[in-house]
Amino acid sequence: MILVHARATAGPGEPFTPTTIQRRDLGPHDVLIDIVYAGICHTDISHARSEWGPTLYPLVPGHEIAGIVSAVGSRVTKFAMGDRAGVGVMVDSCRQCPACRVGQEQHCSAKFIRAYNWVGQDGRPTYGGYSEKIVVDQDFAVRIPESIPLQNAAPLMCAGITVYSPLRHWNAGPGKRVAILGFGGLGHVAVQIAKALGAHTTVLDLSLDKRDDGLRLGADDYRLTTDPDTFSDLAESLDLILSTVPSSIDLDAYLGLLAVDGTLVNVGVSDKPLTVNPFSLIRNRRSIAGSSIGGIAETQEMLDFCGEHGTGAVVEVIDADHIDQAYDRLMTGGVRFRFVIDISTMAPG
Amino acid sequence: MILVHARATAGPGEPFTPTTIQRRDLGPHDVLIDIVYAGICHTDISHARSEWGPTLYPLVPGHEIAGIVSAVGSRVTKFAMGDRAGVGVMVDSCRQCPACRVGQEQHCSAKFIRAYNWVGQDGRPTYGGYSEKIVVDQDFAVRIPESIPLQNAAPLMCAGITVYSPLRHWNAGPGKRVAILGFGGLGHVAVQIAKALGAHTTVLDLSLDKRDDGLRLGADDYRLTTDPDTFSDLAESLDLILSTVPSSIDLDAYLGLLAVDGTLVNVGVSDKPLTVNPFSLIRNRRSIAGSSIGGIAETQEMLDFCGEHGTGAVVEVIDADHIDQAYDRLMTGGVRFRFVIDISTMAPG
Repeated sequence: MILVHARATAGPGEPFTPTTIQRRDLGPHDVLIDIVYAGICHTDISHARSEWGPTLYPLVPGHEIAGIVSAVGSRVTKFAMGDRAGVGVMVDSCRQCPACRVGQEQHCSAKFIRAYNWVGQDGRPTYGGYSEKIVVDQDFAVRIPESIPLQNAAPLMCAGITVYSPLRHWNAGPGKRVAILGFGGLGHVAVQIAKALGAHTTVLDLSLDKRDDGLRLGADDYRLTTDPDTFSDLAESLDLILSTVPSSIDLDAYLGLLAVDGTLVNVGVSDKPLTVNPFSLIRNRRSIAGSSIGGIAETQEMLDFCGEHGTGAVVEVIDADHIDQAYDRLMTGGVRFRFVIDISTMAPG
Repeated sequence: MILVHARATAGPGEPFTPTTIQRRDLGPHDVLIDIVYAGICHTDISHARSEWGPTLYPLVPGHEIAGIVSAVGSRVTKFAMGDRAGVGVMVDSCRQCPACRVGQEQHCSAKFIRAYNWVGQDGRPTYGGYSEKIVVDQDFAVRIPESIPLQNAAPLMCAGITVYSPLRHWNAGPGKRVAILGFGGLGHVAVQIAKALGAHTTVLDLSLDKRDDGLRLGADDYRLTTDPDTFSDLAESLDLILSTVPSSIDLDAYLGLLAVDGTLVNVGVSDKPLTVNPFSLIRNRRSIAGSSIGGIAETQEMLDFCGEHGTGAVVEVIDADHIDQAYDRLMTGGVRFRFVIDISTMAPG
């Protein structure tokens, strides 16, 4: 067993405190990654606070992991020591179901193994990236291109793939009009990717505070969701709306922005049900869809794409003693645009 | 002006009574159709009862029209006297917007002109098929193949295209598993079309009363929606669910039946909002969509397809004095499967 420093919360609302956790000894297909940065995702907060059903405590969150391979198992071919590697939301899956066989491990019919708040194939709880090292099967680690600094790459492992996959699946590209709803941790990556894919890209946000950032990152337009003119000006004009907002929205209002065959894809999950007038869908043959991260091969494709296009998360680096404050600031939208934990600060002082 | 017998209702809950209405004189592009049968659609009842906003009374419903061309305007090229012709939900559109230009008149940005309860290009109310004759621009009439008796063809003009269009758009065909939710006026046509397209076709219905009809019309399977086993047996197995049910359904339960990238398409409109758990969509990248009839060219394609495959509505012919009773029976599901009015009974006795 490998003993590493980590930060854990003992229950809903409990502060993060230093702890040590065990990582398994390397199997033949495993890699050991020395974590350098771990992003803080909104999902971490939901799990830490038991908002999505019971959480396994103590909880070590973190599924936006970027680091350096420091050891490899005897049969590892994909990585060598010193390689830059990332780990995201999934650390294993059944590998046999139809979804796994076509590289859509995120839809594994046996349910994939999550980086944390889950139980691994060995029957032990999984612990995430708020820790110094992680052991993962090589099939669930991806290469991080040299052109993306590790701190900017870490959030791509969840935020990046979460927006890249639907933008690709619903054909964001030249001639398409795409809106990104919510300009936060996911939204600011989505704008960069949509633009790099060639789509006309509009940000829809609650405020104009981050408008300059939006335009700098590539948005063609930046509109206020509290302004009724937004909904009349853009009525029936969009092909795709990617909603990154983790709360209830007025779906009918946003559906009204969609042209014929337009789709609103929801990746920001609220614990409240969505409600929609059936006529909002029937008009213009519109769809509402959901999307969840992406497969491992697609995650690699996303990183390579981001590497080529100079895309990365804009981050604020914090040390491990400030996770609680970061959570509070994240809940009030006070971050541009993603917190990442400097894992060198993980050991207690 | 052409004066014709019709049946109208004077207000919500008022009985249908004989009346006469005026049809416009034939313009150069118009055809006059002697209506032989008119189907009764659930939508007729919603309009008659002012359930979808204010109705223009007196109301002459009917948008499932089958008849014989009895006169043509000077520049009509598409029809000759004696031709079998159908008219559906749309009798005109702007013809200039992007949707109209690609043959999706049902999504006309200026909103298409409805067969009834609408105002025509001439500023006068439109009256539907519960009448002896109709005048319509040739571009909004379609040919009915000789192989479909007119009484079985009439309901195809709404029920048929309403299910054909989404089945085609969402690629019902060989290798696909399709379920038709609700086995009534729309559902019994949908089963025939889905099967003719080559899809594995399952009926989901509230009762097994019509199971024999379902299997006879081509269903591979027929399941009870009140039986929990249906939802476990078919979990995550379907590619497409076409909901023809005009009332609220437990969307999350039905979404649970969809495999990766599955879609639930709603064509049966309820006046209540749809509610759905966002996780039901995120799991398996599922979609909910709406669909509304189809374009004119696609309506012709549907009729030709039905003509080739021996598909038609199974109907119960009533005379014009029994419209009110038919409405009552339709509301309680007591028809196999569509009422059509024998228009030869239209003149008061």
